[in-house]
Amino acid sequence: MQLLERAKELEAQGRRIIHMEIGEPDFSTPPAVIAAARRALDSGDNFYTASTGNPELQQALSRWYMDEYGVAVAPERILITPGTSGAFSLIYAALVEAGESVLLSDPGYPCQRNFIRLAGGEPISVPVGPESRYHLSAALVEKFWQAGTRAAVVINPSNPTGTLIGDDALQQVAQTCRRLGGYLISDEIYHGLSYGVRARTALEFDDDAIVVNGFSKRWAMTGWRIGWVVVPERLIDPCRRVMQNIFIAAPTLSQYAAIAALASADDWERMRLAYDERRRYLLGELPGLGFDIVVEPQGAFYIYANVARITDDAKAFCWQMLEQAGVAMTPGEDFGSYKAAQHVRFSYATGLDDLREGVARLRRALA
Amino acid sequence: MQLLERAKELEAQGRRIIHMEIGEPDFSTPPAVIAAARRALDSGDNFYTASTGNPELQQALSRWYMDEYGVAVAPERILITPGTSGAFSLIYAALVEAGESVLLSDPGYPCQRNFIRLAGGEPISVPVGPESRYHLSAALVEKFWQAGTRAAVVINPSNPTGTLIGDDALQQVAQTCRRLGGYLISDEIYHGLSYGVRARTALEFDDDAIVVNGFSKRWAMTGWRIGWVVVPERLIDPCRRVMQNIFIAAPTLSQYAAIAALASADDWERMRLAYDERRRYLLGELPGLGFDIVVEPQGAFYIYANVARITDDAKAFCWQMLEQAGVAMTPGEDFGSYKAAQHVRFSYATGLDDLREGVARLRRALA
Repeated sequence: MQLLERAKELEAQGRRIIHMEIGEPDFSTPPAVIAAARRALDSGDNFYTASTGNPELQQALSRWYMDEYGVAVAPERILITPGTSGAFSLIYAALVEAGESVLLSDPGYPCQRNFIRLAGGEPISVPVGPESRYHLSAALVEKFWQAGTRAAVVINPSNPTGTLIGDDALQQVAQTCRRLGGYLISDEIYHGLSYGVRARTALEFDDDAIVVNGFSKRWAMTGWRIGWVVVPERLIDPCRRVMQNIFIAAPTLSQYAAIAALASADDWERMRLAYDERRRYLLGELPGLGFDIVVEPQGAFYIYANVARITDDAKAFCWQMLEQAGVAMTPGEDFGSYKAAQHVRFSYATGLDDLREGVARLRRALA
Repeated sequence: MQLLERAKELEAQGRRIIHMEIGEPDFSTPPAVIAAARRALDSGDNFYTASTGNPELQQALSRWYMDEYGVAVAPERILITPGTSGAFSLIYAALVEAGESVLLSDPGYPCQRNFIRLAGGEPISVPVGPESRYHLSAALVEKFWQAGTRAAVVINPSNPTGTLIGDDALQQVAQTCRRLGGYLISDEIYHGLSYGVRARTALEFDDDAIVVNGFSKRWAMTGWRIGWVVVPERLIDPCRRVMQNIFIAAPTLSQYAAIAALASADDWERMRLAYDERRRYLLGELPGLGFDIVVEPQGAFYIYANVARITDDAKAFCWQMLEQAGVAMTPGEDFGSYKAAQHVRFSYATGLDDLREGVARLRRALA
């Protein structure tokens, strides 16, 4: 965050900065979605929806789960939230009592820890490395689970590593959580952005899994603040009560736009192919500069690289590259503490021309 | 909530229900706001804003505070939130540690209790009656304040009573909170909807007050989920950190629409006059039916009536009127416990024709 602020400062001073730190798609929302939003605006319906969401959107998502994954999910199990941030606030408020805990991978998405703490719970960091593709495994869940642990979170594809968990591994984690009396929470926000492999929803393996997803990444709809969470039937009522209190409802117009997004398959594919081209470019260039990519990232728009050949202090290195080369990357410590000083995250939610310029600058700086 | 569900059930069965329970404007968002949203859609800017909001909206609100109240508020003190719900989640997360407390009026807005509990804090109910216009007073704040109390909340105009706090009383509450080492939190969401009197912002009396407001009520923009909170400078950084974690940002399009809303004064005045006509109609009719209105409500779109002449169980009475007369009102217990069985809330966010029909039905039922 401080690094991002410094990058903006440098830009305000007139320097051109190459942004390989930003986790937001560089694409505008697809035209078909904009057109649907315009129609919704004209309809005059700017009122609250039900707290759990517009039933039409819940039904459209239910059909989407069947089309996309072949799984049957009843519409009322799909709760519409203000982004996945809203989904996580909701889940932890509904699931976690003071003193209870949730297992998180380290490295992992940093806000998770704060969502859990805000609900009065305790995040338990589970160090993960290349041997489990930087994901939780059944053995790790078993090892770190405690009395009072309520759930384990899998981010698949992972932020920051871009790696997918194996299908068998996901199934085993789900079974282990269930056996231990808790839930698998599967963060699937980067689903649809995978390359050469198809991510499977945790619901294919465990109907009891809690699945978080949203329109921000795949559909390039960050500013619309619209996501969802699929919960088992027994959690619908507790979640509805929390939703009535903490959100009232997700934005009405965004919910109409989301219905249209689900039908705009050509637009996803266009964006996905662009990300993949960028991914392949970086995978070709970075190792030669000294960035070791131990597990090939096949999803999201991130590459997690080991920088041990270059530095023993990834944070200082990131600051140095920003100041000296005008290239912004994210140091490992933003995602946890395990081997954080040996890693950086590259994002390729930035056009190929900028990525080429970034690589050229890094090459000069590291020469 | 259960009563609202039952009302919907009856409607699904074909009965016509008169809704005097709903706290949402019946007006659509004004055309000038819709037009601005359409322009913003066409701009292609659907990205996240800064977590504290679009600086243009912060600046527009800063000018609005000067125009509307004559108070100078620096733009960076105005944090843009997903509705006032987001503002309350934010404030309590930033302000209240586990075990600390916040003073609330009873009766009062019911979600407040839940926001505070979700942050790990303890709401302290302060019974209020006609003698303080159903508001906290300096003496009550002094009496109920404890070690670990962080703030007192004034909802002005009040939900459920529609009454305004006196200017002197507000100033004294602010001074008392400050002297006791805490904050006044002033919920001003119904500002602009007042009749024959002008509500003053707590910032006129106390630059340290935390003021929550939003576009849902005055501007009829509920489904846009857009509000704000003004905080003292020392709270900006702690609040920004919470915002980055729990919302990322308020909806981008809604923020553009909100800038236009601030310029659409004719539309507010049209809606305000309609509410006032309804208010005067109900104030003329309800006492003759047995509903005693002890303090004239001069704001919001609520009337809080004492039903002791009709019943000693307001909740049973509300259910009876719904089933028998098809008229929905909210029982006092939804707003607290103090004298709750003797009170109901009428909302006049419903057209005059329906209000006339509701009054006629109540007259027949109570004859």
